Amino acid sequence: MTSLLPDPAAPVIVREVGLRDGLQAIARTMPTANKLDWLRGLHAAGLREIEVGSFVPARLLPQLADTAELVAAAKALPGLTTSVLVPNLKGAQAALDSGADAMLLPLSASHAHSLANLRRTPDEVVAEIGRMRALRDASGSRCLLEVGMSTAFGCTIQGAVEPDEVLRLLQAALDAGADRVGLADTVGYADPLQVRRLFERAFARVGDRLGCGHFHDTRGLGLANVFAAWEAGVRRFDACLGGLGGCPHAPGASGNVSTEDVAYLFASMGAPTGLDLEALLALRMRLAGWLDGEPLHGSIARAGLPKTMRMAA
Amino acid sequence: MTSLLPDPAAPVIVREVGLRDGLQAIARTMPTANKLDWLRGLHAAGLREIEVGSFVPARLLPQLADTAELVAAAKALPGLTTSVLVPNLKGAQAALDSGADAMLLPLSASHAHSLANLRRTPDEVVAEIGRMRALRDASGSRCLLEVGMSTAFGCTIQGAVEPDEVLRLLQAALDAGADRVGLADTVGYADPLQVRRLFERAFARVGDRLGCGHFHDTRGLGLANVFAAWEAGVRRFDACLGGLGGCPHAPGASGNVSTEDVAYLFASMGAPTGLDLEALLALRMRLAGWLDGEPLHGSIARAGLPKTMRMAA
Repeated sequence: MTSLLPDPAAPVIVREVGLRDGLQAIARTMPTANKLDWLRGLHAAGLREIEVGSFVPARLLPQLADTAELVAAAKALPGLTTSVLVPNLKGAQAALDSGADAMLLPLSASHAHSLANLRRTPDEVVAEIGRMRALRDASGSRCLLEVGMSTAFGCTIQGAVEPDEVLRLLQAALDAGADRVGLADTVGYADPLQVRRLFERAFARVGDRLGCGHFHDTRGLGLANVFAAWEAGVRRFDACLGGLGGCPHAPGASGNVSTEDVAYLFASMGAPTGLDLEALLALRMRLAGWLDGEPLHGSIARAGLPKTMRMAA
Repeated sequence: MTSLLPDPAAPVIVREVGLRDGLQAIARTMPTANKLDWLRGLHAAGLREIEVGSFVPARLLPQLADTAELVAAAKALPGLTTSVLVPNLKGAQAALDSGADAMLLPLSASHAHSLANLRRTPDEVVAEIGRMRALRDASGSRCLLEVGMSTAFGCTIQGAVEPDEVLRLLQAALDAGADRVGLADTVGYADPLQVRRLFERAFARVGDRLGCGHFHDTRGLGLANVFAAWEAGVRRFDACLGGLGGCPHAPGASGNVSTEDVAYLFASMGAPTGLDLEALLALRMRLAGWLDGEPLHGSIARAGLPKTMRMAA
């Protein structure tokens, strides 16, 4: 069963999405001052890609109403790629106005999830990608248009999602004008064999425009899925400090894979991320204070770094 | 980076070690009646390999003083392979007297851990394997002699452990008379790349006499390591119901990989284990009652099974 292992020396990018995916899952609104401290702390800990918010109507997500302010602060941080989530063309216009470096549009591979979440079929969202691309090109902006394929590994509403449909929609998103695409296990259904298979097929289909793996740890397989995607060739992963981003369908369960655990995984394997583990753990403690009682997840914060890694540091 | 994936249709054996490794880590002594309920519940949930205790002096581990009684009860369960841990020749004699199907001797790859834990160097333990094999053969018993290579991926005392030394000791254990060997991440230091590499090298060296992977989830990588070992060809894994078996060096951290999460991982991937997930989750709730406040670990008990799996059941 021996097979070629990936080269661990290739750099891996961890994109922090806690300021968007994490806070979106929490009812309370974090003061902008705390968000700015969090953002700057992430940058200081080595993060160079951060999703800072979402241009959705403030009445839907008051937690993220200060996204434009966050983008402005992020742009002042050297070497940082600032991304925002946008649900539609109106959000894309706001993203372009803000000066964000990348805008991420979710496209559900599950038709049922797409209708419930965006009130559009997946193919209607694909058509919106074309309009967003035209808007971006007409504006002269170089803002990257990324499409995140949500529910790519299963759906709490629809159940199973066909890999062929995921691949068809990946190709359709790129054909419609997306610069790059990613695959997301939005609801924590993926297993590592499924992850390796689907990413390998997706790489074969769309090559290096496949840009990101987004995993939740809902059922304990988050880091196994990150590893499996890394084996398949993925070198960019979304994560949330403290494993924020729990699913409303699974109260008490973990959320996104935690930034500090993903950083630990790659540090253990010798893959460079540029992240400072001690700084991340210190920032996590500050985050716990800002969130005052909101449950955080992740293992390395509880167990501490192993002796081997402390000696190597 | 595409590479051959293992055939998921090959059966996987999960060996429950909670009655030994789990209880050993807990100060309180579980009444024998509860242990017997646990044992029978495991068998009813589909477990066909169970480590029921340890033949160490009762003054060292009073929690496991009833091991002979547990073996006798286990032998009455149809199709069950009953194993016990033995630290030395005297323990091996007790295992043979008990009628256990397998005895497992820990052999530390870390010299420092070996001296601290067994007061012997690894090569002195190898010599003991030869005496245990002679004792077993002279007795006419068919009790399997298995050697578990502890601290194979790192050590809390010594730090790094050289893979070459692990491979040397694996070979030495087999040469001395062990029937099969396994690799254990006793302290939760392993990462999945390290696991794939070491298991692939070990298979190349000793072939199918490499029988087991034993992983702790101390730093969140337990299931990733199980997956990586499975990719390398391992088809037998140790696990503890409720993730018991925490490490005294990492208070609050997870213990062994949890039986129910390992069962969920393989069920998700389509690899048959013969385990009944709902029965395991119900038994876990009973275990929580018997342990009355002792922290349990694991994700699937919190999050619940995904819709896709419930529909498939």
